[in-house]
Formats: sequence, C-alpha cells, structure tokens
Amino acid sequence: MNILVINAGSSSLKYQLYNMKDEDVLAKGRVERIGMDSSILTHEVEHQPEMREVSEILDHTTAIKKVLDMLTHRKFGVLRNIQDIQAVGHRVVHGGESFSRSVLVDQGVKLEIRKLFDLAPLHNPAHMMGIMAVEANLPEVPQAVVFDTAFHQTMPPSSYLYAIPTVLYRKHQIRRYGFHGTSHDYVSKRTAEYLGKPLEQLKLITCHIGNGASCAAILHGKSYDTSMGMTPLEGLMMGTRSGDLDPAVVPFTINKEDLTLNEVNSMLNKHSGLLAISGISSDMREIVEAMNEGNEQAKLAFEMYAYRIRKYIGAYIAAMDGVDAIVFTAGVGENSDVLRKEVCKGLTFFGVVVDNERNSVRSSEPRRITSDESAVSVLVVPTNEELLIARDTYQLVLQLPQA
Amino acid sequence: MNILVINAGSSSLKYQLYNMKDEDVLAKGRVERIGMDSSILTHEVEHQPEMREVSEILDHTTAIKKVLDMLTHRKFGVLRNIQDIQAVGHRVVHGGESFSRSVLVDQGVKLEIRKLFDLAPLHNPAHMMGIMAVEANLPEVPQAVVFDTAFHQTMPPSSYLYAIPTVLYRKHQIRRYGFHGTSHDYVSKRTAEYLGKPLEQLKLITCHIGNGASCAAILHGKSYDTSMGMTPLEGLMMGTRSGDLDPAVVPFTINKEDLTLNEVNSMLNKHSGLLAISGISSDMREIVEAMNEGNEQAKLAFEMYAYRIRKYIGAYIAAMDGVDAIVFTAGVGENSDVLRKEVCKGLTFFGVVVDNERNSVRSSEPRRITSDESAVSVLVVPTNEELLIARDTYQLVLQLPQA
Repeated sequence: MNILVINAGSSSLKYQLYNMKDEDVLAKGRVERIGMDSSILTHEVEHQPEMREVSEILDHTTAIKKVLDMLTHRKFGVLRNIQDIQAVGHRVVHGGESFSRSVLVDQGVKLEIRKLFDLAPLHNPAHMMGIMAVEANLPEVPQAVVFDTAFHQTMPPSSYLYAIPTVLYRKHQIRRYGFHGTSHDYVSKRTAEYLGKPLEQLKLITCHIGNGASCAAILHGKSYDTSMGMTPLEGLMMGTRSGDLDPAVVPFTINKEDLTLNEVNSMLNKHSGLLAISGISSDMREIVEAMNEGNEQAKLAFEMYAYRIRKYIGAYIAAMDGVDAIVFTAGVGENSDVLRKEVCKGLTFFGVVVDNERNSVRSSEPRRITSDESAVSVLVVPTNEELLIARDTYQLVLQLPQA
Repeated sequence: MNILVINAGSSSLKYQLYNMKDEDVLAKGRVERIGMDSSILTHEVEHQPEMREVSEILDHTTAIKKVLDMLTHRKFGVLRNIQDIQAVGHRVVHGGESFSRSVLVDQGVKLEIRKLFDLAPLHNPAHMMGIMAVEANLPEVPQAVVFDTAFHQTMPPSSYLYAIPTVLYRKHQIRRYGFHGTSHDYVSKRTAEYLGKPLEQLKLITCHIGNGASCAAILHGKSYDTSMGMTPLEGLMMGTRSGDLDPAVVPFTINKEDLTLNEVNSMLNKHSGLLAISGISSDMREIVEAMNEGNEQAKLAFEMYAYRIRKYIGAYIAAMDGVDAIVFTAGVGENSDVLRKEVCKGLTFFGVVVDNERNSVRSSEPRRITSDESAVSVLVVPTNEELLIARDTYQLVLQLPQA
C-alpha cells in the first residue's frame, strides 16, 4: 500500500510518499509560497537530483494537483497513476480534547477540527485546507488525521490544568495540551526497542529539540506531563519562542509598549527565544559557531537554552519519581553534541555520565551517549513523525471494510 | 538598642518592636483598614491579652502615631518614651537591580524605591508611605530598608533573563527578580547552623510556602535561581495566584473574556490558585479539611499544589547538580505535614526517605523530617523575616558615626 503523508501549512505543504511494504520513502518534497507569486515545488526521489519547479500555485487544491502530477510524472515520478495512492495521512497540530488517537476523516472529524480553529489559529485552518484539497483531487481515497496533541491526552488533571478560574477551562478549553506528540510517541517506542525493555516498565524523558522544542515525561508508555501548554509557546526556550515567562510580563509589556494582542503574540512566538537573546539567529548551529568565535550574547543564549532543558529534566524526574532514560531527538537534539553535553553537565547527581566519544558520533540510528557505568542512560533517537503518520494511517485503512 | 520593624501595605501596617540585646520581641501588632472607616489597631505584648482599638486612621502617618502611642502607653506600652526607639527597619518588596543588600534610607534610596513603583505598583508605594510616616513622627531616627528581592541579586543571567527581546530588559527592566528573599536568606543560614556545616559548602532548596509561595536554589549560600519572577505571580501555585502558565493564555483570555489589563492581572493574582481550583478557599488548612471530607476539587487543588512544588525541587536539583537539604518554611510549609508528605512522595529517587513520625512533630525549632538513612535531608525551618529585618537594620545602624 502507498500512503501519502501531508503536512499542510498556511502557505506551504510538505509531502512524503511511503510504500508500506517496507516503509520506504518513494518520494518527498514541498510546495512553498502557496498563494503568493512564483510558488516553488521541490521534489526529491532517492538517488536522483532534486527537482525544482516555479509556477503559480494559488491554493492548496492546486498544490496537491501539482504534487500528484509530479508523483506520476513520466520522468520524475514514482507511480504509474494516482490510483496507486491508497490513502493519505495528515499531520494536524491541535486535536484538543476530542482526539486521543489518530482517526479517519469524516464529516464529524472535520467539524471537530474546525471547532479547534480558535485554539490553533495558525495551524488547524491550514490543515483543513490540506484535507479539502486532497478530497478535491482524490475523492475516493481515505484520509487519516494524526494529531500533535493526541499522545498527551493521557496526562492527569494535575499535569494539564492551569491554576486559573475553572470557568476558563469549561468555557474556552484553556488547559495544557502539549504538542510534538507524534514525535514523543515514536521516540519513546523506539527507545524501548533499543533498550530491549517493555515500554510499560520504563520511565522516559524525551526531549524533542528542534526549532520548536518540548520535553515530555513518559511514564510506562503514557505521556504524564509535557512542557508545551495550551499552545506551543510554553516551556523550553526555542528558536524564536520565549517559552516560560512570568505571566505578568504579558500585560506589563502590552501596557508599556502599547501593543495589540496580535503584536504581543507575535513578539513572544516569532521574535523571542534564541533569536532575541543572541541577536543573530534562531539556528543552534549559528549560535554555537558564534559562541566559538567569542560572541558573548550567543554564549548566553546557548546557556539559557541548555539550562532550561536541564531544569525540565530534573522536574520530570521528580514528577515520575525516577527515570530510566533521557532521550534527545529532532534537529538540534539529534545533531548538537555540544548542546547535549551542556544539558547533561548538570545531571551527574542523577548518575548521568556522558561518554564524550559516544556523544560525538553522528548516525541516523538510535544510540547511547552515556558510558556503560552511567546509572541513567542518555540516548539520541532520531525522530520520524512522517513515518508514524504513515503507520497510523495504514493501520486505520486496514480496518476499513474492503471495497 | 530597640528597633521597630514595619511592614506597610496600602491599607495596613504590621509592626514588631525588637530589643536587640537578646533579640526579644517586646511588642507586635497591626493596623488594618487605614483610610477606610473604623480602622483597627491590634497590639500584643507577651503574657498579656491582645489589645484591639477601633478608631479613624486616615493615613499611614496617623497609623504610625497610633502605634507609637500604644508602644509608650501607660498601661499597654513597653517603652518609657519614643526616644527609646533607636532605629526603624522597613520591609520593601521590590529593590529591582538597584539593591543587592539592605541600606539606610536617604534621599537617593527613596528616589530609587520610587523608580521601582512601576515594577511593584501594589507594594512599593505603600512602603514609601510607611517610610514617610516614620519620618514625620520620628524625624531623628535612622531608617533601613530590607528588600524581598535583594538576596536573589546573585542569580546568574541564565537564571534571571527571560528569552524575550532584550530591549524589554534594557528599557523596562523586565527580568526575574524573585521575592521572599529575606526568608530564603534567613532560612538557609538557619539550615546551615542546624546541619553544623558551612553554608558555603551546601546546596539547598528552600521552599517558602505561605499564602504566597516560592522555591529557591541556594548554591553555596547564594541564590542561584528562584521560582517567582518579575512579579510574585510566577512559579508555584499559590493561595490565589496562578503561578506558571502558558504566556499565550493571557492574550487569549483577554480576547475571549474581553478583559482589561487590570482585570486579567487581578484574575491571575487574586482569583486563581488554590481558591480557583478548590472553589472553596485559598487556605491550605481548609483545603485539606475539605479533601479529608471527600471534596474532589479540594483534592485536585492539593495535588496540583504539591506536584508543582515537587517539580521545582527536581528542577533545582538539576540546576545545582545536587542538593544537600530541602527546606520547608512559612505558614503552610511549617505547619502542613500532609503537604510535605505529598511533595516528598515523588522524591524517593533522589534518596529522600520521610519519617512520618518526625514529619508530624510541631515545633518552632528547626527539625529534620527525614529518617537518618535518607540520602537527602528534608527539614522544617521556621522563618522569621521580621528578625532578619531587625538584624540588618541593627548592623547598618551600628556602622553610623556616633551622634
């Protein structure tokens, strides 16, 4: 079975085509600048040069059409015709409290996703456009939605409630949802496999450190707590997001700088984090480079970033009363040995002993970066959200009555 | 030397009169409802019944006058005349970055406190009224100010900076300051005495859990991090304060509920915390009572409250890479064995073993609540902010050239 995985943004659309027989990626790519002038489609097939096509793509429906054309292209394609796509899986950021697992799309599901527009105004409407665009192009093909929040729906109320008037939860669903759930889920399962132990017996802390970043306390295979909250703003310091902050800073800043609510949201989400403190970049590679060249602000940004990850690890050890393994994943987590070292510097009390040589290894496979004597294992486990979306979609489609 | 310690609020004023020879409290009391009708002065001298006097007290100057009258009262007083007060020490909540220690009041100091009105609009103006009221009544007496923030001025930038545009720090001094500094300072010193170890060699986590609540990581005698932030709103869940929250909740709530900035501040500071979740009280004694009677919301409030303290303890162990002792203090911390037990429940991985019998002891002396085998000591150390204010004032006045 071939499954097309879609991650639709408001002006972009990423895709990967999986053959589920051996979970091979047949092709992948992205459409950028949808609805702007000169949209760009980038398409990639293994062992072949990357393809770029510039054209006018005014909406998501046209974008999906272009992707399908490319996938069945005489020269660059990998499929004979579009009937070879048996299912489509979408990433959806916010599933609120309605979805604690992936589901097949139907009218009811679309209605629920629409109800959550308020909680994820930047993401859910774009995902809906992706779903509609697939419907328009492939009306017969089943679609599944895989939610960033679903994995965290196992959190107990003491983790997910904020200590604010309960009417705000009842009326507006203000609570902690957590994100990157697909990644935390995938990585925790991979970790159990790697350790050769049942996930149900493990206490894990997974650190998804990419441009967005979150930690999760995973107790016996279930999310027990996570650092992102109602939105992906809370928790760790990120590329351009502030993470944790005295809530009183928000009204104080609105007042002092005479900002609108949109402006303060934009400031905290797009102009904060590594970018704000370093003054140069939201990209950890550039931060580390500048730090090595003696840039003091870059050094401070790096230290703050690592310090906050370290504090969350400590907090989650206390939350679960123990930890078997701490796991780094995603762009920065997988690739920055310098960051991992800085985070672990403060974890020796917990019995963490990093092996510098192991930490410096680069690989796409799960690996341990602590010494054999380390009481707590620290691992790097590459994430693969698209694969999990493909797998969930596959499982859901298998349950459909045969056509 | 007799020192009068003053804690002035906007409509209240608490006082304690110390004889510094043996640090005895000669008298203490409070004036409430200043500027409202029927103000109340409550006055207490050891071994004597409490005195209550209702009268019209329109301002802080009159309040101080009433206090001085009472202290020198023929029947209820403890001083022959007001010349027997040699110095006055004030609690001041916000010292910003200007004050990293207690100082004697002069024109420059008053100007600095005034500059900080913006950062502590509910507190610093009231303290200033207290200072002015003492000046008016005791023009010759030296006054000292002891800041809640001063002890935390040793925090490194990675602890005190928020990951927001640096212009907000430069222009509006938006950063973490931390509060309860006098208490964290006093308690950490008492703890070192109790343990018989030099403070400079200890890693301590002090949990000041009262109606307001904060944790501090005290590394070798210096504040390294603390849970309250720019204001006392951040960090732990409190009686009526929310503590930590996704910063995005603030603009979201302002928008959804059409709140003014004052209203959202008031909601987060006065209508959140234990009160909001339990729906019955901001007082831990009432919460525990209701919980024992089967009130589910009270139980949830209790669990959330304890869980967040536990997470901060874990975070600060990671921050300092270790801990020698965890210390509970202030109203709830000193008196609620149930809460201490709940917090420590999740700390066995760190080697904490609570002794239930020791935990249930009530005493005004420092004491250990862990068993002798516990790898990390958990202590209860009663705080005494007034005494530290008196001591700081005493030391400062001793340095004055003799009149």
